[in-house]
Amino acid sequence: MKIGLLGCGTVGSALVQLLDADGDRLGSLLGEPLELGRILVRDLHKVRAHEVPMKLLTTELAEVIEDPEIELVVELLGPGEFALSAIESALASHKSVVTANKEILSTHFRELESAAAKVNRDIFFEAAVAGGIPLIRALRVSLFGERLTRIVGIVNGTTNYILTQMQEEHVSLETALGDAQRLGYAEADPHGDLSGRDAASKLAIIASIAFGSHVDVADVQVDGIWGVTPADFDFARRSGGVIKLLAQAERSLDSPDAPVRVEVFPAIVMSDHPLASVRGSFNAVFVEGSAVGQLMFSGPGAGGLPTASAVLADIIDAVTNLRNATRAPMRVAQGTRFVDDSSIEGVFALSVDVIDAPGVLSRVSEVFGRNLVSIARMEQDELDSELAHLVFLTHRTRLSSIRATMAQLSELSVIQRLHKVLRVLE
Amino acid sequence: MKIGLLGCGTVGSALVQLLDADGDRLGSLLGEPLELGRILVRDLHKVRAHEVPMKLLTTELAEVIEDPEIELVVELLGPGEFALSAIESALASHKSVVTANKEILSTHFRELESAAAKVNRDIFFEAAVAGGIPLIRALRVSLFGERLTRIVGIVNGTTNYILTQMQEEHVSLETALGDAQRLGYAEADPHGDLSGRDAASKLAIIASIAFGSHVDVADVQVDGIWGVTPADFDFARRSGGVIKLLAQAERSLDSPDAPVRVEVFPAIVMSDHPLASVRGSFNAVFVEGSAVGQLMFSGPGAGGLPTASAVLADIIDAVTNLRNATRAPMRVAQGTRFVDDSSIEGVFALSVDVIDAPGVLSRVSEVFGRNLVSIARMEQDELDSELAHLVFLTHRTRLSSIRATMAQLSELSVIQRLHKVLRVLE
Repeated sequence: MKIGLLGCGTVGSALVQLLDADGDRLGSLLGEPLELGRILVRDLHKVRAHEVPMKLLTTELAEVIEDPEIELVVELLGPGEFALSAIESALASHKSVVTANKEILSTHFRELESAAAKVNRDIFFEAAVAGGIPLIRALRVSLFGERLTRIVGIVNGTTNYILTQMQEEHVSLETALGDAQRLGYAEADPHGDLSGRDAASKLAIIASIAFGSHVDVADVQVDGIWGVTPADFDFARRSGGVIKLLAQAERSLDSPDAPVRVEVFPAIVMSDHPLASVRGSFNAVFVEGSAVGQLMFSGPGAGGLPTASAVLADIIDAVTNLRNATRAPMRVAQGTRFVDDSSIEGVFALSVDVIDAPGVLSRVSEVFGRNLVSIARMEQDELDSELAHLVFLTHRTRLSSIRATMAQLSELSVIQRLHKVLRVLE
Repeated sequence: MKIGLLGCGTVGSALVQLLDADGDRLGSLLGEPLELGRILVRDLHKVRAHEVPMKLLTTELAEVIEDPEIELVVELLGPGEFALSAIESALASHKSVVTANKEILSTHFRELESAAAKVNRDIFFEAAVAGGIPLIRALRVSLFGERLTRIVGIVNGTTNYILTQMQEEHVSLETALGDAQRLGYAEADPHGDLSGRDAASKLAIIASIAFGSHVDVADVQVDGIWGVTPADFDFARRSGGVIKLLAQAERSLDSPDAPVRVEVFPAIVMSDHPLASVRGSFNAVFVEGSAVGQLMFSGPGAGGLPTASAVLADIIDAVTNLRNATRAPMRVAQGTRFVDDSSIEGVFALSVDVIDAPGVLSRVSEVFGRNLVSIARMEQDELDSELAHLVFLTHRTRLSSIRATMAQLSELSVIQRLHKVLRVLE
């Protein structure tokens, strides 16, 4: 049995390295050799982190897909239509597929899973979410029998690195982003990470597996970290917390078709919560189920070797199933409803810069009252002789009321600036 | 396909409850009904936490083992020879086995695994270690391809509850133990937990799976929490840490047959380490591998429903394999060598009560010097007008040197009391 590899970048090279070092040992443990048959690359002569045998390289997808000795295709091509059609071709050729492609899975998971089921092959994707953390297999196998109610976690290492820098070095988002780019923790175009879109892709996959539902990245309510300021960190610190970008999926057990709520948002996390101490590029995910209670998984969220380790776990599983002519069971997708945006509730921190004059607080407070938003705490800082910075921490209230409040505040002449709204993790 | 259940105590009743609530749904997801065929109990008329159909109950093991409709036996009998022979009989009758029996697995794992392999059936035991945390499956499947180097964690909820109480309420071990017994967190005979033996059983299982080795509970170096005092917590606090009972397995990657080191010991854990914030009856386990880096798993370490959830995961896996006529792969046991006790190294905290007189510190220090134990820090507290409490924190040194130091200190006339030696987690 041979393995075809599509793409040989950071993760692909690390996988070749792991198979070089350990393939023989693993093959003998499995009773089935783990051998690379073909590697699809764009450039035959590129210098790679780990040396790859020239004779395995090809620039033609067909040479991998049409090779009858290759029973398993590992797709590490990155986003794009080419990767999607490569996965579809591999499944159509009755090959099992291992992929780390969160972009594709977050929109095409159900159709690819159906295509795999039709030919009795697996599609595995442990590496698409949370790097080296074996989260997908835990949700898919170990927690198959659980009624899961909530998954909340830090699944984007780039934003977590930036937020950790802002928290510990008291720097601005722009400075922390620049550092992250210099150190290779953030890409030249950081928008996919900072906008929350990357976390939303991962959340869509997590929620689809955890709830046996059909969640597309477009179903996720997304707010990223653009606009988070050092002043927000100061407030979080005084409140006893830090700021994290969270991905959260929730489902009630009230009825079998209860709607699902999927959101990515920056939040104040209190210091005694285990998610508060997840630093740098690490990932951590909480999983809550009705029988098991609360579990946490954490580990490296990215990086060549940790991600390749997750790919290797999938390869081993897929090879075992191919040898046994079986495939991994998957919860059938139910029709999925989503919680109406307007009924989402939470605790929020709102901050505004106002003209520092008598009566201003009363005018601002009146807007909160008009929208039935109850204030748990207020703090005021003088910015200079003319401006003050106000932060309001609400009691539990509707997101729609917060939005209305912000819209109405923006029309007050005493308001100089509306800052980003933060949630508080409950 | 029917399931035979042996034992219907806390976990057994919770399992019956889960199957009652969810068995039909899970059966239809699996394409294979999950139905209890027979339940072995000691007393047919005992009142149980969850009502069990009388017609399923039996007091005869043979009625479960010899029932041809029962293809899977779930063993929840607790420690003892009867449980071992029940598992052996079930496997001999070609039934797959799910067990939560850490006592049996920590001494008989390899022979039971061989017996299962011989008849092409599974023996699964997710619930034997760390309650509801899906650790065993992660080690066995997700990390099958990893070269694991270290597993360290908190795997005994009773001692963790007691240590958390001592830390937060500043009470003695005896007071915390009494509270734990009243609240049902500790048994009437707490010795198995407090001596470290329970943690050692779990560690033997973890190390056997993680390293593909053969570790018996008798191979584990065990020190429990008897003798830990409020003064130790004061010192830990001043050092920036807390005290936890750790189970640790290590293996070097220097050679394929590098020796294994397995230990249970109370240790000072610095507050910024994630294990420091694991409170009460929760469990948490760190796993380090050469490719994946450092992972952490945490969750409820005990309790009926969380443990039954782990049993249910095993049932689902076993049923899937029975239907596919396959079994889960298992690393073949290598001959296992253990690190010689005398070569174990660490950082230690030693404390002694001494007569408060000039020259005493020099006499004590001389003993450290004689044994080549280098001191990183010393603290002295006056206990009363005549006695002082000394705590020494060492640099990295051999355990054998610490033992020699303690033995020689015990012979000094100025020493009034030797306290428990604590390790420091590195």
